[in-house]
Amino acid sequence: MARRPDPAKRERIVRSTRDLLQRRGVAGTTMIDVVAEAGASRGSLYHYFPGGRSEMVEDAVRGAVAEYSEGLEALRGLEPSVAIPLIVDVWRSEAEASDYTAGCPVVAAALGGESEPTGRDLAGAAFADWTAFIAEYFRECGVPETRSEPLAMLALSAVEGAVVLSLAQRSSAPLQRVTAELVRLIEAERA
Amino acid sequence: MARRPDPAKRERIVRSTRDLLQRRGVAGTTMIDVVAEAGASRGSLYHYFPGGRSEMVEDAVRGAVAEYSEGLEALRGLEPSVAIPLIVDVWRSEAEASDYTAGCPVVAAALGGESEPTGRDLAGAAFADWTAFIAEYFRECGVPETRSEPLAMLALSAVEGAVVLSLAQRSSAPLQRVTAELVRLIEAERA
Repeated sequence: MARRPDPAKRERIVRSTRDLLQRRGVAGTTMIDVVAEAGASRGSLYHYFPGGRSEMVEDAVRGAVAEYSEGLEALRGLEPSVAIPLIVDVWRSEAEASDYTAGCPVVAAALGGESEPTGRDLAGAAFADWTAFIAEYFRECGVPETRSEPLAMLALSAVEGAVVLSLAQRSSAPLQRVTAELVRLIEAERA
Repeated sequence: MARRPDPAKRERIVRSTRDLLQRRGVAGTTMIDVVAEAGASRGSLYHYFPGGRSEMVEDAVRGAVAEYSEGLEALRGLEPSVAIPLIVDVWRSEAEASDYTAGCPVVAAALGGESEPTGRDLAGAAFADWTAFIAEYFRECGVPETRSEPLAMLALSAVEGAVVLSLAQRSSAPLQRVTAELVRLIEAERA
C-alpha cells in the first residue's frame, strides 16, 4: 500500500536535519541521527528522501539559504546601523537559544564538502549571492562602487567568523562587537 | 607485557585526529575514524589516550593552537602589509593542499561543543588569546589603543570566516580579498 505523502512530516525531517547540521555538522547528520532526532522511521526517511542523506542535507541547506536570503531582502531601505544588527541577531538568537551549540547551517555545509560536495556547492553559491546582495545594499547606502564588493565580502566573512567565536566563548560579545565595528566601517565609507 | 611508549606513534595519532577535525569536524572524528586514518589499532589508541576521543581531540586542538600561536609570534616587528598575508597563507595553503576540504581545526573544535565541550573551551580560550595578541600587534604598529581591540576581533573573525567561504567556493579568492581589505583597514587606522 502506497503511503500518502504528508508534507508536514517531510518538513519535520528537513527541520531535524537542519538542527543537526547546526549543532553537529555534516558528519554528525547521518540517517541514524535524523531518525532519532525527527522521531521518524528509517523507512519514512527513504520514502520522503529517496536520495538519502545527500537529499536531506541539500533540502535543509536550501531551506536555510532561502530563509536567510529573505531576511537580507527585508533590510533594503534601512540604515546600516539598524540593518546590520538586525541580520546579525538571527544568528545570535539561534546561538543563545541552543546554549551556544547551534552555528550557521550554511557554514556546516561549507565544511562538509568531503562527504557532501553538493551541499558544499550550495553553500558556495549562497555566499556568492549574499556577497553580491550586501554589495548592492552598501551601494544603495552611498558606499562607492569600487568599495562595495570588498566590504561586502569582509562583512559576510566577519559575521560568519564571529558566530564561531561566539559559540566557542559561549557569549554573544564577539557577534556584538563585530557588528558595531562593521556599522562603523560602513558609515565611514558612505559618500 | 607492557608496551613501550613510542612518542612517534602517539604523535601520528594526534596528527590524524587533527586532519580528521579539519576535514570532517568533531562528529566525524570518532575512535573508529582515527583507527582508519592513523593505521593504528583500537588498543593502541586507548593505550596512548586512556581518555579516549576527548583526550585525542583536546591534544590535537592544543597542538594546532600552539602552532598557530607560534606563527603569530613570528610576525612581531613586520609591517601589517607583510604580516597579515603571511599568517593568512597558513590557512590558504592548508585549504589548497587538501583540495579545499580542510578548514581550521580550532573552528572545528568551536563547532563541536555539544559532544566535546572541553575542546570547545580550548577553542574559546585560543580565540581570546589571539584577539589579545593581535590587538597588541596593532598597537605596536601605531593603531590607537581604543581601536586595537575591536579591530583585532574583526580581523580574527574575518579571517576565520574567509577560510569557510574559500572552502565553500573552492577558491582562495575570499581569503585573498579579505586579507587585502584588512591590510587597508589597519593602514588607515595607523597614527
